[in-house]
Amino acid sequence: MIVTPERPSQSLVVEPVARLIEAFSRLPGIGTKTASRLTFFLLRAREEQARDLANAIIQVKEQVRLCSRCFNITIGELCPICLSPNREAGIICVVEEPLDVLAIERTGVYRGIYHVLHGHLSPLEGIYREHLKIDALLARVQSEPIEEVILATNPNTEGEATAFLILKDLAPLGVRVTRLARGLPTGGDLEWADADTLGSALEGRHDL
Amino acid sequence: MIVTPERPSQSLVVEPVARLIEAFSRLPGIGTKTASRLTFFLLRAREEQARDLANAIIQVKEQVRLCSRCFNITIGELCPICLSPNREAGIICVVEEPLDVLAIERTGVYRGIYHVLHGHLSPLEGIYREHLKIDALLARVQSEPIEEVILATNPNTEGEATAFLILKDLAPLGVRVTRLARGLPTGGDLEWADADTLGSALEGRHDL
Repeated sequence: MIVTPERPSQSLVVEPVARLIEAFSRLPGIGTKTASRLTFFLLRAREEQARDLANAIIQVKEQVRLCSRCFNITIGELCPICLSPNREAGIICVVEEPLDVLAIERTGVYRGIYHVLHGHLSPLEGIYREHLKIDALLARVQSEPIEEVILATNPNTEGEATAFLILKDLAPLGVRVTRLARGLPTGGDLEWADADTLGSALEGRHDL
Repeated sequence: MIVTPERPSQSLVVEPVARLIEAFSRLPGIGTKTASRLTFFLLRAREEQARDLANAIIQVKEQVRLCSRCFNITIGELCPICLSPNREAGIICVVEEPLDVLAIERTGVYRGIYHVLHGHLSPLEGIYREHLKIDALLARVQSEPIEEVILATNPNTEGEATAFLILKDLAPLGVRVTRLARGLPTGGDLEWADADTLGSALEGRHDL
């Protein structure tokens, strides 16, 4: 007994609710369903929790800026890593995004400094060399006592292209340039490794 | 060559960033990884997009309230459904949450009015009868020309318990009480249906 399906007027969703659902669904990985769920959660949540979230969003935009040296995020002029006297200033690790800095810091293995490109080459998305912090990197290599540049861009097409471009730019400067090793992920399973990864693992095999 | 893993100081995450990650991860279904992703997305996003989201959160709390009759969400005194002259005022559909109203409206099948309980019975979570809008429902059934009450609480343990409690309360009032049909979902597959659903489908079979 389906009646004439006079479509459920979206006007049933009151306007501020519709606006919040819309704002949430503009975030990456958040579809309309998740956006509704978050919105209705906040409707029921304590006033304070909603206000905390709103304030945190505003403050992150107002207070956070980029380190004037390495372009990592910071609240002062320089980021905590550039300010630290305990880091090796002769090794610079080049990453695409500030989140990559955190990922590498979590390993506890790296004691050098960073340079954040803020993206990767992607002509299809309209991202060219001039949109990345590449000139600033070259300037640093020329003015700072850098001995090694680790190109830690992502191991995918865009990351490889970006690394290759930077490698060409660095060549005349005579600095050592390295790239992160590729191989099997720890805890991984040979059987499930893709051919490319397994190929890299074979090429990069080392003596025991 | 793992060095002494002087643990990556969380202080590397600048404070406003840490606070936004924390605020995002207090939302349901958002873990720390997703919260970081959203935070770093907003860091890169246009000022305006971040401000839109923050304002939408504040406004949803400031402007949205509950319909004084059916407890659906609204911005005025009554919700759009209660205000509409085109709804059958003799049928009332009882749901757990405002989102359930939207789900039923999307079907285009229902022309009656609603009553939102704002939860379900759940002694384990400390939600008892008095936390739900049950007394208000009984008052409506006594004062409005209601002929049928559809108990559309969820088809799970809490929803069933809630429906059973309301059924008992409604019994003395002599109103017709119905429950949504249970059976195979449209587009579903007999082979993958759970025993309970398939059992309900058998019990509820009808002549063709």
